[in-house]
Amino acid sequence: MSSRLSFEQYLQNTTDQVTEALKEVIPVHWDVPQSLRDAMQYSLMAGGKRLRPLLVVAAAEALGAQRTAAFPVACAVEMVHTYSLIHDDLPAMDNDDYRRGKLTNHKVYGEATAILAGDALLTHAFYCVVQAGRKSGVPAEALLSIVEDLSELAGARGMVGGQVADMEGEQGMTDLEQLQYIHMHKTGDLIVFSLLAGARIGGATEGQLEALRVFGRDLGLAFQIQDDILDLTGDEQKMGKKTQSDVNQQKVTYPFFIGMEASLEQVRLLTQSAKDALGRAELQDSSRLMEIADYLMRRDH
Amino acid sequence: MSSRLSFEQYLQNTTDQVTEALKEVIPVHWDVPQSLRDAMQYSLMAGGKRLRPLLVVAAAEALGAQRTAAFPVACAVEMVHTYSLIHDDLPAMDNDDYRRGKLTNHKVYGEATAILAGDALLTHAFYCVVQAGRKSGVPAEALLSIVEDLSELAGARGMVGGQVADMEGEQGMTDLEQLQYIHMHKTGDLIVFSLLAGARIGGATEGQLEALRVFGRDLGLAFQIQDDILDLTGDEQKMGKKTQSDVNQQKVTYPFFIGMEASLEQVRLLTQSAKDALGRAELQDSSRLMEIADYLMRRDH
Repeated sequence: MSSRLSFEQYLQNTTDQVTEALKEVIPVHWDVPQSLRDAMQYSLMAGGKRLRPLLVVAAAEALGAQRTAAFPVACAVEMVHTYSLIHDDLPAMDNDDYRRGKLTNHKVYGEATAILAGDALLTHAFYCVVQAGRKSGVPAEALLSIVEDLSELAGARGMVGGQVADMEGEQGMTDLEQLQYIHMHKTGDLIVFSLLAGARIGGATEGQLEALRVFGRDLGLAFQIQDDILDLTGDEQKMGKKTQSDVNQQKVTYPFFIGMEASLEQVRLLTQSAKDALGRAELQDSSRLMEIADYLMRRDH
Repeated sequence: MSSRLSFEQYLQNTTDQVTEALKEVIPVHWDVPQSLRDAMQYSLMAGGKRLRPLLVVAAAEALGAQRTAAFPVACAVEMVHTYSLIHDDLPAMDNDDYRRGKLTNHKVYGEATAILAGDALLTHAFYCVVQAGRKSGVPAEALLSIVEDLSELAGARGMVGGQVADMEGEQGMTDLEQLQYIHMHKTGDLIVFSLLAGARIGGATEGQLEALRVFGRDLGLAFQIQDDILDLTGDEQKMGKKTQSDVNQQKVTYPFFIGMEASLEQVRLLTQSAKDALGRAELQDSSRLMEIADYLMRRDH
């Protein structure tokens, strides 16, 4: 066996490989209107942690699958995440001019193209899922379950439902339970999807899927509470956006409800509970997923 | 065998059954934010010809499948069509206040919810496709091909690409070739999808799929030219929208380029060519599809 990569190298390699794969799914000479292709590409390549693709790859590998088999679905989930950011940033929603230090999609391409680029990325995500079968031989039944999971966890009962609740929350109707709903759906569901999808590519059993679902829920909530914390305390340079924007927008956050100390404690507890669930999943090798959980808790941006 | 229904009865029955099926896929007590459910439901139930679901059902039956097996995919394509209308009507796009005589989605629910309701309908469409397997036993390979077709024909290379070209056309760069591109993608591709999906549910051969693709392309273009014509000459009451809106918006149309007489002739020629392709498809019973082609040519709204 080759010597084991450090976690930092593993992270960098995976991020780089996913970014390369993303370039290939939207080819330079694609027969679509140029402005649409450019707008799709712009936001896909605007940086970001590639956390969701990383989880797809790490979950697939934890089950013993080849990482290349996971790339098409890794691209799919990054497209869904990217479309959701483009639509969230629109004037009718959060009305943000910058994301990750770059102009938002509609500031560059105009609102109409931004809406349609989002629509096209969401649609193309499902194309990418099917390609995991065409290219890497992932079985049809597993792919259909991935399509089903994606449509549920990214849809009305998942991410989009969380976004609607978030918007309504901004109109001042939020309590902690509502905030938890928002976090679990708006952010958590796509994290859960990534883990389930990777696991399905690796041929996971129902029991393993269930354990990974719990891992994903706890990890997703911890991730989002950490985001709330970093938004109040983080370094603007590292975050690539104005911090304290939640305060300025009167957006309620975990620290708002339970205070900073208790929020930090929640992140620790949820991360531990996530890792416990992972320990029960009896995966072939869960070490990278464990490292990812620790990494997310430690991150400063 | 039971006596054959008249085409009008067949049309009415199918439309009614699809509308019932659409009610079931967005249940009253769905665990999603109420405003989101309401907004999705509002546009899905705002009337319309249900042409695309009709084509799914008719194509499936033409191959000998049970019509109930086609309902989940029929619902899926209507959701995709509906989402595209919601997004098209937005202020950033066509900025329409009315559609089919009713207020547009964003006029009732606000822009943010309208964008998200569109996103949720598109996402839920893929869920419905998978349900055709769960409920009616359509084989996994056929369903994956349907997911693939939908993601291509509704995406950047299909419907969304057509919409982008249409928007750019409004800025005055259109010629007849460009208009044909817009019509074929913005409208035609979802019609092609409907036929292919129905045929796949019925277990079509590659040759049959190819013939139906040609049928769909010609039918779709004829349908859209007919729309251009009706927009100039149609009865506002029947159309459920202001006619001559294309003239008022300086939108270029087939009659604008080749005149009214030649446009009418194009509709006739394309319908005939569509029916010829259908004749070559060697379906079990192509009579309803033939009747639909004639009906679309004769329609006055």
